[in-house]
Amino acid sequence: MDRLIEAIEAKESPVVVGLDPTEALVPPQVTACLNDFRIDDVDRFITDLKASDSPDDKRLLTWLNEANESETRRIAAAAMARSAQFSGACIVMGFYRFNQAVIDAVKDIVPAVKPQVAMYEAYGSIGFDAYRMTCQYAQEQGLYVLGDIKRGDIGSTAAAYAKHLTGVNSLENDCNGQPWREDAVTVNPYFGVDGIRPFTDAAKANDRDVFALVRTSNPSSREIQELELVGGERLYEHVADLVEKWGSDSIGAYGYSRLGAVVGATHPEQGRALRERMPHTFFLVPGYGAQGGTAQDAANMFDADGRGAIVNSSRGIIGAWKKSEQWHNDMTSDEALDLVGRCAREAAIAMRDDLRTALHER
Amino acid sequence: MDRLIEAIEAKESPVVVGLDPTEALVPPQVTACLNDFRIDDVDRFITDLKASDSPDDKRLLTWLNEANESETRRIAAAAMARSAQFSGACIVMGFYRFNQAVIDAVKDIVPAVKPQVAMYEAYGSIGFDAYRMTCQYAQEQGLYVLGDIKRGDIGSTAAAYAKHLTGVNSLENDCNGQPWREDAVTVNPYFGVDGIRPFTDAAKANDRDVFALVRTSNPSSREIQELELVGGERLYEHVADLVEKWGSDSIGAYGYSRLGAVVGATHPEQGRALRERMPHTFFLVPGYGAQGGTAQDAANMFDADGRGAIVNSSRGIIGAWKKSEQWHNDMTSDEALDLVGRCAREAAIAMRDDLRTALHER
Repeated sequence: MDRLIEAIEAKESPVVVGLDPTEALVPPQVTACLNDFRIDDVDRFITDLKASDSPDDKRLLTWLNEANESETRRIAAAAMARSAQFSGACIVMGFYRFNQAVIDAVKDIVPAVKPQVAMYEAYGSIGFDAYRMTCQYAQEQGLYVLGDIKRGDIGSTAAAYAKHLTGVNSLENDCNGQPWREDAVTVNPYFGVDGIRPFTDAAKANDRDVFALVRTSNPSSREIQELELVGGERLYEHVADLVEKWGSDSIGAYGYSRLGAVVGATHPEQGRALRERMPHTFFLVPGYGAQGGTAQDAANMFDADGRGAIVNSSRGIIGAWKKSEQWHNDMTSDEALDLVGRCAREAAIAMRDDLRTALHER
Repeated sequence: MDRLIEAIEAKESPVVVGLDPTEALVPPQVTACLNDFRIDDVDRFITDLKASDSPDDKRLLTWLNEANESETRRIAAAAMARSAQFSGACIVMGFYRFNQAVIDAVKDIVPAVKPQVAMYEAYGSIGFDAYRMTCQYAQEQGLYVLGDIKRGDIGSTAAAYAKHLTGVNSLENDCNGQPWREDAVTVNPYFGVDGIRPFTDAAKANDRDVFALVRTSNPSSREIQELELVGGERLYEHVADLVEKWGSDSIGAYGYSRLGAVVGATHPEQGRALRERMPHTFFLVPGYGAQGGTAQDAANMFDADGRGAIVNSSRGIIGAWKKSEQWHNDMTSDEALDLVGRCAREAAIAMRDDLRTALHER
């Protein structure tokens, strides 16, 4: 967890920006494109694009040109490869451009981003192209990438999921064997240690981290996580003890292990107690903002030194443009993305300052 | 669940074949290819392939020709699009060919297949191409496709994952809005009903099904699932009651709801009790064969009419070729795939008969 902790200290901000684009959260100018455009050849596709006067075509070409050469070919060919999914390609490549705008706007003031893979997975394999490109772009901009994948399965299957962190040996000569580009991933503890060990082993071997679900932010989580056990403790407390134990062989320079915990800001008193109970476990804290958690709530999840947690906001930052008076429907996509970035930056600064004040006053 | 139940009765077999290919389980002839092959143009790629005398090239061309036209272009272009991942493309397209061979060999004697998405996800987005193509091929051959994805998240995110079952409205004109091709998916219950409802709603609206984890087959599952609650019941029993309740608004013609449960064959006595406890919940039973569960163990998960469960085997069927005396390293890939299919069929028949005997004798 040392790399994440050092990134937080360098940026003086424990804010992680959730990159969870949806068609409702991304300006329509950015995702709309070229629905009637159908050709059967990558080269003809690019040639026609270059010759075209249509604003839509020019915009797509701009995106392609902004990508590096191999990426350009990849986007174009991926779009062609899936000509049957072409509007899907426009949508998810719009997500990617949207994420780039957010990343560019916040990269000097936040340490990390957390793309939620479900938002990309909804579109099938081309969605994963956009997910991977987002992760790679964020890493190239110096950000720590927390892949919110919440995978979990029996041991042999968990080992396959752990390729998110290890890469694939047989791809060594290709893309450096890394079809994924995450610095950490989230995992589900329902399988016990069999389902966790492949991830923590992969994390140790590759300088990555893992975050296990302990107390999630959603209302109905109490149905399972707050069940009372015979000894009097709650299920999430028992899971907390297991997570603290499972991580104990990977404690780093700052006293935190490579196995963190997800603890929702919507449970501030439980979070305060968990902070005591799990002294070597770093917390990923969702639920701030749109889900109802406050900075005071989140402040409970930090240790006495003001470390030990990173707080996520997704809609509150990437959707901040929707509340701007500067927004209007006839903006170009570049103007829209510019507004997205400026609003995201303002929101990320406000959240950072909100957390600083809460940490100072507690 | 009616479609699955009818498929089981039609084939007179409660066997689901787990399509979980790995590089160790697929003959090397089938995944190896063309590592030095690098060109920058889809058309040149195909032209060169047609002109080539190399056995590897001819094999790839055969695969491409066996696919339909749009699929051919998609495979070729996907390989090109990801030229940086080209050996990955060979591996996962090898998985697809392997799955086709298994499907062709068992499609008249089993009702369903269960691809484990982790095995494809390990290779990144091109792995999902192979996953989707596998699902689609299986459906085209008349099989029910159970996508073993074990997703789970808070409500808004679960809604994105539920696109596995609903498709994506904005893609309506493309690929029928269906980037996925599953008849059912597996989900994780740790979030409570918030994380389940989007899936069950999607299932009801689209004639699909969902299976929630209750008692998984792996050894360490007891660390969480067998925890004793204050009332004396075990956690998995409490989850079982929730699942039975959550499914109660979707009970079909045979008395089973659209929300099934995953119950491992490795816990036969618990399974027998759960069968009583969850009268409207259909069981997906993993853990037969390689993981240690027997037909007698699995028989406990069926109701008095011999319905109510489907039993999975993965390695025991798709890896059966590895125990064949007919196997030799210098087989062509077609010969290897032929052996894979014949051994899979024998294993699926043996498993079906094993279950029939156990159900008859109990």
